[in-house]
Amino acid sequence: MKMYGNWRSAAAFRVRIAMNLKGIAYEEIFLDLDAGEQFKPDFLAINPQGAVPALFDGDGPPLTQSLAILDYLEETQGGMKLLPADPRERARARSLAQVVACDTHPLYVPRVRTFLMEHYGLPREKMLDFLRNAFTTGLNVLEKRLSTEAGTGRYCQGDAVSHADLCLISLWVGTGIFGIDTAPYPTVKRIAEALLALDAVARAHPLRQPGAPAQ
Amino acid sequence: MKMYGNWRSAAAFRVRIAMNLKGIAYEEIFLDLDAGEQFKPDFLAINPQGAVPALFDGDGPPLTQSLAILDYLEETQGGMKLLPADPRERARARSLAQVVACDTHPLYVPRVRTFLMEHYGLPREKMLDFLRNAFTTGLNVLEKRLSTEAGTGRYCQGDAVSHADLCLISLWVGTGIFGIDTAPYPTVKRIAEALLALDAVARAHPLRQPGAPAQ
Repeated sequence: MKMYGNWRSAAAFRVRIAMNLKGIAYEEIFLDLDAGEQFKPDFLAINPQGAVPALFDGDGPPLTQSLAILDYLEETQGGMKLLPADPRERARARSLAQVVACDTHPLYVPRVRTFLMEHYGLPREKMLDFLRNAFTTGLNVLEKRLSTEAGTGRYCQGDAVSHADLCLISLWVGTGIFGIDTAPYPTVKRIAEALLALDAVARAHPLRQPGAPAQ
Repeated sequence: MKMYGNWRSAAAFRVRIAMNLKGIAYEEIFLDLDAGEQFKPDFLAINPQGAVPALFDGDGPPLTQSLAILDYLEETQGGMKLLPADPRERARARSLAQVVACDTHPLYVPRVRTFLMEHYGLPREKMLDFLRNAFTTGLNVLEKRLSTEAGTGRYCQGDAVSHADLCLISLWVGTGIFGIDTAPYPTVKRIAEALLALDAVARAHPLRQPGAPAQ
């Protein structure tokens, strides 16, 4: 498979982990988001949204939106399953994934940060309050749910990695980049550390991709 | 089934449509979001996120996040199918759904609007620029994709209603409420009008639920 991504894209990170866990061979083409490559005509012809990831599985139109790609891989590929078999457990894994992928991540993407600075004239540091609020709101929900709901195990849903974990870790790695205090989220932290210890996650880590700053 | 919802919740609207189309009997308990009922202990015990919808299917823990609920209904209930059988078509329907449910709707929910006004001291009218930007960005992506991609038919994906349509219409009904000019989105409009002509959609419409303002 061939994926258009970027080292710092949380959404591309999720898909890389899934492909590593499932043993899918892929090539990633890293767009330079700072240079606006995602808005050039060549890429807009692939994804009119101007967003990564965009995945090609052989011929056929590109697949977009990370959660839709994760479901597609689950439905079409062999290897490790990343959703439980039980419908209620699947629903919980998906719900936790969407706390991140719907209600948190879209609030701090570059286009939102740019709009806040350009339209409202907010200096960067003040704009970042919006981002920090998104992070802490999302982390609070994850912590409350993961620390109280019976479904939590070694990972978000039981003892097997699921889409919920791919989303959790994609949020977690941002806490370091943006200086978010993680002390209030011990359950999230425990699961994040278990995930980072997996080779499939470590190899997919944003800071290990081409273009990432030196650690 | 029993759902906690609210007349104006775009996410609850999606779930109501799915239950109507599938012929699922349900009761909806309407929380007063303006009075903050979603943040009272009784409801936080159901959904720590303080968000609707939360769905009970018999006993067992509540189901949350509209897209996770839609997949759960698809996997466990009979009646009309709301995702195509083909994996690529399913992926496209889900991707279009997520353009709304991930990248658009979470940007204009009340908690974001409140944060912008309270934290940045923006007057309501100026805050609404953020909301309008979210709407027009999302509608632009939908229009570009729906008007150019081969998969579009009478509805977003072919000629059968899918999760993409439930999300599209949940965004569309907001254009009237917030005064968004819909002229630039003729394909979105065509599909929205086809959807509004369906009894299952019309009965689920926000303005036909208890608590909605008179039209």
